[in-house]
Order: sequence, then C-alpha cells, then structure tokens
Amino acid sequence: MEANEIITHEPLVNPVLSELASDEGQLSEETRESIIALPSEAIAALLESLPAEQRLKVWELISADEQGDVLFEMHDDARRHLINDMDEAELRSMAARLSPQELVELNELIPPKLYSRRLKLMSIKEQTAVNTAMRFDEDQVGRNIDSDFISISETLTSQQVMRLLRQWQIPSNTDLLCLVNDEGLYAGSVQLTDLFNAHPQQAIAELKLEEDPAIAAEMHMSEVADRNYQNHHAMMPVVDETGQLLGRITSQDILGWVQDDAEAAMLNQAGLSEDEDLFAPVKRSAKRRAVWLGINLFTALLASWTIGLFEATLEQVVALAILMPIVASMGGIAGSQTLTLAIRGLALGHLSMSNAMLIFKKEIAVGLLNGVVWAVVIGAMAGFWFQQVAIGMVIGAAILVNLIFAAISGVLIPLMLDKLKIDPALSGAVILTTVTDVVGFFAFLGLGSLFLV
Amino acid sequence: MEANEIITHEPLVNPVLSELASDEGQLSEETRESIIALPSEAIAALLESLPAEQRLKVWELISADEQGDVLFEMHDDARRHLINDMDEAELRSMAARLSPQELVELNELIPPKLYSRRLKLMSIKEQTAVNTAMRFDEDQVGRNIDSDFISISETLTSQQVMRLLRQWQIPSNTDLLCLVNDEGLYAGSVQLTDLFNAHPQQAIAELKLEEDPAIAAEMHMSEVADRNYQNHHAMMPVVDETGQLLGRITSQDILGWVQDDAEAAMLNQAGLSEDEDLFAPVKRSAKRRAVWLGINLFTALLASWTIGLFEATLEQVVALAILMPIVASMGGIAGSQTLTLAIRGLALGHLSMSNAMLIFKKEIAVGLLNGVVWAVVIGAMAGFWFQQVAIGMVIGAAILVNLIFAAISGVLIPLMLDKLKIDPALSGAVILTTVTDVVGFFAFLGLGSLFLV
Repeated sequence: MEANEIITHEPLVNPVLSELASDEGQLSEETRESIIALPSEAIAALLESLPAEQRLKVWELISADEQGDVLFEMHDDARRHLINDMDEAELRSMAARLSPQELVELNELIPPKLYSRRLKLMSIKEQTAVNTAMRFDEDQVGRNIDSDFISISETLTSQQVMRLLRQWQIPSNTDLLCLVNDEGLYAGSVQLTDLFNAHPQQAIAELKLEEDPAIAAEMHMSEVADRNYQNHHAMMPVVDETGQLLGRITSQDILGWVQDDAEAAMLNQAGLSEDEDLFAPVKRSAKRRAVWLGINLFTALLASWTIGLFEATLEQVVALAILMPIVASMGGIAGSQTLTLAIRGLALGHLSMSNAMLIFKKEIAVGLLNGVVWAVVIGAMAGFWFQQVAIGMVIGAAILVNLIFAAISGVLIPLMLDKLKIDPALSGAVILTTVTDVVGFFAFLGLGSLFLV
Repeated sequence: MEANEIITHEPLVNPVLSELASDEGQLSEETRESIIALPSEAIAALLESLPAEQRLKVWELISADEQGDVLFEMHDDARRHLINDMDEAELRSMAARLSPQELVELNELIPPKLYSRRLKLMSIKEQTAVNTAMRFDEDQVGRNIDSDFISISETLTSQQVMRLLRQWQIPSNTDLLCLVNDEGLYAGSVQLTDLFNAHPQQAIAELKLEEDPAIAAEMHMSEVADRNYQNHHAMMPVVDETGQLLGRITSQDILGWVQDDAEAAMLNQAGLSEDEDLFAPVKRSAKRRAVWLGINLFTALLASWTIGLFEATLEQVVALAILMPIVASMGGIAGSQTLTLAIRGLALGHLSMSNAMLIFKKEIAVGLLNGVVWAVVIGAMAGFWFQQVAIGMVIGAAILVNLIFAAISGVLIPLMLDKLKIDPALSGAVILTTVTDVVGFFAFLGLGSLFLV
C-alpha cells in the first residue's frame, strides 16, 4: 500500500483561467467536476489563486453546505470579496449551515442579524461554545478551542467509563478524557490509553495524570505553542479562572495558528496585512500600501535632511555623494543582524533585562571588530577609486562609527520596544535603518567637512 | 482546580549571573536546586541565556542522564560549545545514554566512535529507527519520525486487539493503530477510539480508515505541516516506497519543525544561521556576519558606481545628492511589498506560472498608481525645498519609474528564483534592493543630467 498523494488546487488554475477566457466563457463539465471534488482547503486555495471575475464564477459552483467550510480556510479580504457578492438569500442559506467554529471565525463578516439567527438555532452546547469563544481575543486560547471533548464524572470506575465510551461517538484527536467533580468543575485528565491497562473496578480518578495538561483560556497562543511542544498530548483541556471546563485545544489548531502567525509576521514586516488578497482591487491595494510608503518617506526625508546639512561640503567634494550610500547601507545591514538576533532572543526568552548588558557588550565588540575590518577594506577601495588617501580615511572612520552605532541600536531598539509592549519584529527594522542612515550620513559628511574641505 | 503555570528559566538568569559574579563565585544551594528541578527545555533555555563561562558552570550541574535531553532542545552552536568543553569520560557517559532520536539529532556533534558504540548497544528496533532516520534529510519526514507506534496484524479481531493493548504500554500521542499484512507491509490504520464502538468479533481490518493517513517518508516537512492541518489525527504513519512502515510522525513533532522553520526563515533573511548562539565568541560572530556584509558591500558598490556615472552632474546640482536616497528608498519599500506578497503566494500555491501574468499586471497597476501619487507629493516637496520646479519634475518622474520597476522586479525575481530552486525568501530582498537602488539612482541622476544641467 502506497502513501496517497495530497490533492491540490494547482492543476486547476490553468484550465479555469483558459476556459473562462475562451469564446464560450464557460467552465467545461470536467473542470466543474474536478473543482467540486476538491477538499474545502483546496477550493479555498483555488479561489485565492483567481482574479475577481473568475473567482466569482468558481464560487457559484460551491454548494451552500460547503461555502462555510471554504470561507473558513480563506484569508479575510478574499472572504469579504465573496461574501459581498452574495445576495441575501444566498447569505442566509450559507449562514444557516455554519458550524460553531465557522460562526466564530466569520462573525465580523456576516450581518449581525444572520449571526444571531444562526446562534439561536444551535444546540445549547453549541451556543455555549460560540459565546465562550467570543469572550476572548483571536490570539487567546479561549478563542481557538472546540467543544469536542469528553467529560466524565470522576466518581466512575474504569469499567463504567469503558461502557460509556462504547455508546458514544468519540471525536477525532481525543487522547484525553476530562474528569469533572460533583460541582461540574474540571478535576483532572485521564489518558485514554491508560484505560486499557486499568483494572475494571479501578476508580477512574486514580488514573489521573500527575502532570495536569489543562491550560488557562486567557493564555496567549504563542505560549501554548511552546508548551504543547513539551507536553505530549494531542489535545489540552482549557479551563477558566473558576475551574470551569470550557473546551479543548488540539495540536492541529495550535499548528494552524503558528503557521498563520509566521505568515502574518512576514507580511507585517513589509507593512502588509496578513489578510491581503493577491488579487485585491488595484485601488485598494495601492491605498493600503501607501501608508507604509508614507512612513518610509518620513524616514527618508530625515536622511535627506541630514545630507542637506552638508550641502556646501558636497558641492566641493562630489566623491562624498558617490560614496555615501555605502556607509548607510553597511550600517543598516550590520544593525539588522544584531536586531534579528535580539528579536529571536526576546521571543525565546534568551534575552532579558538580566543579561542585556552582557549582550550589549558582545555586540559592540562584534561591531568594533567588523567595523575595523570593513573600514580598512572600504577605506582602501575608496582611496584608490578617488586617488586620495584622506577620502579613504574619512569613509573608514564613518564605517567604524556607524557599525558601532548599529550594534548599540540593534540591542537597544528591540529592548525598548519590548518594554513599551510594541512588537519589535514589526517596527524595529524601520527605526533601526532610520538611525543607521542618519548616523551614517552625519558621520561621513561631518568628517568629510572637517578633513576634506 | 486551576490550570498550572509554565515553569520557565527566566527567573533564574539573574541569580545565576549575580551569584557567579559575587566574591564567592559559587552558585547557592537554593539556585542549584532550582536549576536541577527545571524541565530539560527550561535548562536548555537557561544555558542559552548565559555567557560562555557561566554556561559551563551551570552545565556541570546537569547529570549525564539528562545531558542528552538538554542538548536535544538547544541550538547547534550552543550545543557545540558545551560538547567541546566535555572531557572524554564525560562525553562517553553522556553518549551512552542518548535515546535514538537524540542520537540522530546530535550525530554530527559527537565523535563517530561514540556514535557507533551507542548504536551497537541499542535494541534492534532502536538501531533500525536510527538507521532509518539517517537515510533522510533534516527537512524530510523520515528524519523526524519516532518508532513509538503500535503495529498489529490485520487478521485479528477487535477483541483480540483490545486484549493485546491491555498488556502493552501504549505510547503517548497514540490515536491510531497501524495494521500490517502477512508480508509485514503497512495495510492501513485504525482509529483507536473506533475500537470502543466495535463488536468484539469484528475483524480489525473492517475498522480501517477510508482516508488513509499514511505519508511517504521522502515528503518535505512543510508539505506534511499543510497536510496535518487538514488531517485530523495526532499522528501519521510513515511508509517508504516499498510499503514498509518506518515509524510515525506526531503533530507535536510537526509543530516543533514549523516553529524552528519560521525562526530559521527570520534569521536567514538577515544572513544569519538559525544555529547562531546569542553568546557566540566575538571573533566567530564577527567572521560569520562579515560574509553577509561583504555581499551587501558588493551591491552598495554597484549603487555607488551608478552614482559615479553622474559625477559631473552632481558637481553642478548638489540638490540631486541630497534627494537621491529618497528615490532609492521609496523603490526599495514598494518593491519589498510586492516581493513579500509574491513569496507568500508561492508558498501557499496561490501564485504560479498559470496566473503570474495577471498578478504582474495588477502589481504594475498598483505601482503606477502609487507612483503617480508619490511623484506628485515628493515632487512638490522637493520643488519647494529647492525653490525650483524642474527638480520637482525630475524627482517625480524618477519615483514613478522606480515604483514601476519595483513592481516588475517584485514579481519577476521570486518567480525566477523559484524556477531556479533558490528560496526567494532568502536572497530575494538583496537582489530586489540592488535593482531598485541602481534603477532609482540611474533614473534620477540621468533625468537630472538631461534637464537640470
């Protein structure tokens, strides 16, 4: 028996685009069938791979039953695009079929009226699940739980539990049973597999895991991700501050969150939202990106203003204008290396106020060493290029100054942002390059004014 | 019952540093005990939070039994630091206690003699596990598997299986039983929980999952991560091309890989290795980072050379020197936005050769629109600053040209790198900013030469 292949949307992008662009402007029967046969994650990916018009044509093929599943797998902007195109009847019929987790995920995108109508038609258990999830932020555990856990009175024997399990449908990813006490509060967890080795008359409470896997619903998902890696269960019970069992979180849900979080981090670094649609309308894309360009313009103006201070010098020594990007860019690169290490150190808890001073010293030493090396290399090159020793000395000194400043900023900026509860991965790089640009230009042109004019 | 807290190393960093820096230069009894009581992940994090000397003092406290577990949780450079400090007897005693997974993970760091000695002393099953893992790359599933799976003949009844399970120790994270046929080949999986609902005389083969969760050992971990999110099991059986069951991979191992991969991606972008130690010796750090600085120097020289082409113009119009960083930097930012979206699109399979042309058009349109907007804004600002309309016109035109080029490069560069099997997340940004720098300076100074001299 061979391992089966993953079914992806990729082979369908081309047929969809070419069939819809043909004279008929219709999808062939074969393509339609292939699309409908895809799992919902693949349909979601196919939709996100298509421009607006073609996307809507494919969306028409998806049954109201599956629409919720597909939307659940998509990014926010693409979801909004599809939802905005649906008429009231379609929306109503889609909303009426949403699962509790889908309703929570899509809550901001569907009309409040449809949200409450769907909620009312759910079972009490499902309603509680939705209302519980809505009490928490997207990055808190409570928002990411499901209610597919099995809870059992802690007074039963192992045989009684076995009998109950025979009658129940056991949800996937269940490797723990949650025990509750008389008051209905969480009382510990039993590993499902331990039931096999237990004596029939043994009290289930005696099988309780010593290291309780339960976690608090307020916990941040990133903390749970670190913890889950240590803890060896497929799921973790989630409780509130009163000890009420709210639900469970599975390793898979944590994995999904970690993947989304890494994606968001990459996009946010470029001033983009993780919800950004590859085929967003041109105007909207341009508008959103303009904000980041505007912030950058401000920092670039600071750099230009610094250069402007030395207008008279530049008029006399044009070599300075030619060489100045080198000083700024070497500082930027060296600084971003220190910054990146510091950001990882903060994330892993390896860097804190306790040892910041030591890392500070080390990074300055690295900056000094690389500063000297590159000052000599670049100084020599510049001296040869412009046939003037003094230019080589000036650029060398400026490189040295900038690399040391880069090291200082690379440690200080993330520590300060962290203290201010601002994510250093987000804005650290912009602030850092502003510093290295301004310091680099100032040092280089300042020294140039002193020694070359 | 309240959810218990995560035990971290962080409260210990300060006491360790201050006690070792005190006159006695010794750790207090209390600190020693707290360290030893930490789980191995926390000890690993504590060690990585300490400079070389203090790290070795703490390492001395760790028993040979736990050393392998702790090293397993660390980054490569920090591991090497500790291993290099151990004498032969200590190394031998640590190596002799390594688990199969630890031996695989640390294989490059311990002497070959100790590796083979440890391997020989393992059970046949463990030896097979190690040798199997070593056949694969670090990013392949086969390297990340464990052998904690339960395999059962497909000819048994559900009652017989239940009886067997009662006698065995069932590993954590087990939610599937793997069936094997007469020839010992993998024959499908049964969900453990389905056993509860089965009739005692029912053949276990009848309970086989329809959608087989098994995956091929050659598969890349990133593919498995995407698949695991769809597939609802805590583990997946892993098979080779002959259908032999090699082991299993758990959601937790996948999660660990995804977290490491995201960390590596962030560090690699700054030209750093994921193995980098926060407290690496200054010389080694400086040497490693010098390579990236050298690459960057080359691109900076290209930019300077471009500027140098216009030396005569710069001598006459110093305003060009003052404003030129703005043109380059706006292009770099706009380009990195397109690049980031394209990289994500490639990773998720939303961008491919099938739809590249459409995204190309959209990005050029966005570049054009933002180009016009920022050309007007920056042109007006520059015109006012230097009291000269022509300067405003020249910088505006250069911004427009550079933003369009940035859009083109932002799509083309990652597509080309992807074709060449080079990770665009790694080198895409360096190539892109080289293009936007050179194009930006050339357009701005070229237009300046034509219209301002």
